[in-house]
Amino acid sequence: MDNTYHPLAPDWQVQQWFNTPTPLTLPALRGKVIVLEAFQMLCPGCVSHGLPQAVRVHAAFPHDQVAVVGLHTVFEHRDVMTPAALQAFLHEYRIPFPVGVDQPAPRGPIPVTMRAYAMQGTPTLTLIDRQGRVRQQHFGQVSGLVLGAQIGALLGEAPANAGEPTAIAGCTGDGCAGPFPPAPAGTAE
Amino acid sequence: MDNTYHPLAPDWQVQQWFNTPTPLTLPALRGKVIVLEAFQMLCPGCVSHGLPQAVRVHAAFPHDQVAVVGLHTVFEHRDVMTPAALQAFLHEYRIPFPVGVDQPAPRGPIPVTMRAYAMQGTPTLTLIDRQGRVRQQHFGQVSGLVLGAQIGALLGEAPANAGEPTAIAGCTGDGCAGPFPPAPAGTAE
Amino acid sequence: MDNTYHPLAPDWQVQQWFNTPTPLTLPALRGKVIVLEAFQMLCPGCVSHGLPQAVRVHAAFPHDQVAVVGLHTVFEHRDVMTPAALQAFLHEYRIPFPVGVDQPAPRGPIPVTMRAYAMQGTPTLTLIDRQGRVRQQHFGQVSGLVLGAQIGALLGEAPANAGEPTAIAGCTGDGCAGPFPPAPAGTAE
Amino acid sequence: MDNTYHPLAPDWQVQQWFNTPTPLTLPALRGKVIVLEAFQMLCPGCVSHGLPQAVRVHAAFPHDQVAVVGLHTVFEHRDVMTPAALQAFLHEYRIPFPVGVDQPAPRGPIPVTMRAYAMQGTPTLTLIDRQGRVRQQHFGQVSGLVLGAQIGALLGEAPANAGEPTAIAGCTGDGCAGPFPPAPAGTAE
Repeated sequence: MDNTYHPLAPDWQVQQWFNTPTPLTLPALRGKVIVLEAFQMLCPGCVSHGLPQAVRVHAAFPHDQVAVVGLHTVFEHRDVMTPAALQAFLHEYRIPFPVGVDQPAPRGPIPVTMRAYAMQGTPTLTLIDRQGRVRQQHFGQVSGLVLGAQIGALLGEAPANAGEPTAIAGCTGDGCAGPFPPAPAGTAE
Repeated sequence: MDNTYHPLAPDWQVQQWFNTPTPLTLPALRGKVIVLEAFQMLCPGCVSHGLPQAVRVHAAFPHDQVAVVGLHTVFEHRDVMTPAALQAFLHEYRIPFPVGVDQPAPRGPIPVTMRAYAMQGTPTLTLIDRQGRVRQQHFGQVSGLVLGAQIGALLGEAPANAGEPTAIAGCTGDGCAGPFPPAPAGTAE
Repeated sequence: MDNTYHPLAPDWQVQQWFNTPTPLTLPALRGKVIVLEAFQMLCPGCVSHGLPQAVRVHAAFPHDQVAVVGLHTVFEHRDVMTPAALQAFLHEYRIPFPVGVDQPAPRGPIPVTMRAYAMQGTPTLTLIDRQGRVRQQHFGQVSGLVLGAQIGALLGEAPANAGEPTAIAGCTGDGCAGPFPPAPAGTAE
Repeated sequence: MDNTYHPLAPDWQVQQWFNTPTPLTLPALRGKVIVLEAFQMLCPGCVSHGLPQAVRVHAAFPHDQVAVVGLHTVFEHRDVMTPAALQAFLHEYRIPFPVGVDQPAPRGPIPVTMRAYAMQGTPTLTLIDRQGRVRQQHFGQVSGLVLGAQIGALLGEAPANAGEPTAIAGCTGDGCAGPFPPAPAGTAE
């Protein structure tokens, strides 16, 4: 078991949710590995790499083991990247996972959850373990191989603080049982 | 701990080795996760996808935890894909990991190790766990995300047969300590 | 000389221009080959293929020979893809060529210029020859090779209606003199 | 008409031909635009970029207008990149156009035709016009857009030395009539 100290992930302050009937909270997701994808709909790197990668993660891992959650952390062009604009974007880009609109701050451009997580910008991918602790944060591009290995390792950790190994559900050395789409032609990840 | 029965990986029957001062054997690699990449130098999918992925795996994981080994499993154009040709290929493509020439069979085109592993063709990637057992075999393309997760999960398993969890060396939920090259621009894996 | 009948390209009805100090008109561009790229900022194919291709065309051909002009032909999510939103998009995506906002129609979703050109959707690339006639229209993806050949052929045509061959300015069999950026690593076009 | 002096392309000295019932010669191809792709089968850039581009050119332009010809210009690993090896390579990579084996030189590693064309290495793409003159030579990568424009311009030149414009066969501002395959999904060229 990993005994290093890892801080609990800060709760999400979300103004509005899309793609979910009810708001998502970290406590309600406790026990799952969480892939939090922070993005801006007009950020080219988010559109070309971050979001497509998050969509692939959502497709590759069983949803009762890994939760992919998007967070629209708008810190520029705020008058344009409104929730209504985000909704159109999510529709056109067929984003399938829940996406929350980060709460604007009372002062300054950085929204509340983005600041709480000390994110440097977008895209930022944060990995939260089964115990609700921040374990990784990637600003910019991260390779699918490295990301997959980190997710695989987190899945192998016990959900509770008990420290005893449990049956490795979802993703084991035998593979990750779940909705594994065939790799599209020409796609390496 | 994973209690499913997994067969031990068959020993490699290799005619000649490249990129290693001494022959590699499975027993000598016991304790490491092994990524065995079977390929033919004139197989387009091997050159465009399989080998580049194996090179990325070699670069991403610490070498005392994950061993990447190539196997030249020639079953067609055998008069052309000779060890001398392979040597030139490995030089031109800058393949950095050890590569063994699969032993030709006394009869028939399928070389000995390829047959022992029941491989369907090339490229085939086989994952062998720390206990020397075959855990995955991918014929054709496998996404970096899925492959990374499988490697990450295997790294989380105990090296010995004792069944007790050990400190997760090399690759943990905190990441995979080792030579992580920055992702080249435009590369998703 | 090409004697086939080709209709004159319809004048552009533009509500607002970006990236140009003065409005662009077809008559003012007479004599140049015009590459008209119709897009919507939330159209994934436009963002991933159409606009990057238009940017490459803009970089590859001399601006006194080939004019690349963008047209924001919004026919859906009109409340979101406003001129203000487009301006932010053009800034974030570093679009270097002039872009006009197609005039909304009095009735129905299809804007005026889009309808005049009988475009099927976005992205649509229209090639207009030196004499102001529509010569090609591509809805969806067109390969760089084919597009380049069509542009090269149009550049070889006489600007005027005289029908006599002139010195092939700008782009000849010797190449296309102008700002040719080195192909970025990994880019085939 | 283009009055600049361009040297006639040197005749090809070929040891053996593949993918053609009879040897190809420059005089026999007079009147066509020729795309000469010099490569080595173990040259990574040739395999990943040069040859695939030549295959796309072969597919995009009518064969009575544009002739794509491969030239195996082996200057290293000559004991390995034999005609027999090349034949296996051409089969596995489904190369559809004629390929000639450049004649080894009596002395030194550079084969005869490669030296006659003053090629710097592989891959090298040489464009020869309808009158048999060298008009372009690209060592390394060339973008499809630029290459297409150069081919399109050369197609617009008169076949004979007469200087009079002829009907623009094959490729005009209206497009390039011929076998245009639909762009495969995800392919920009």
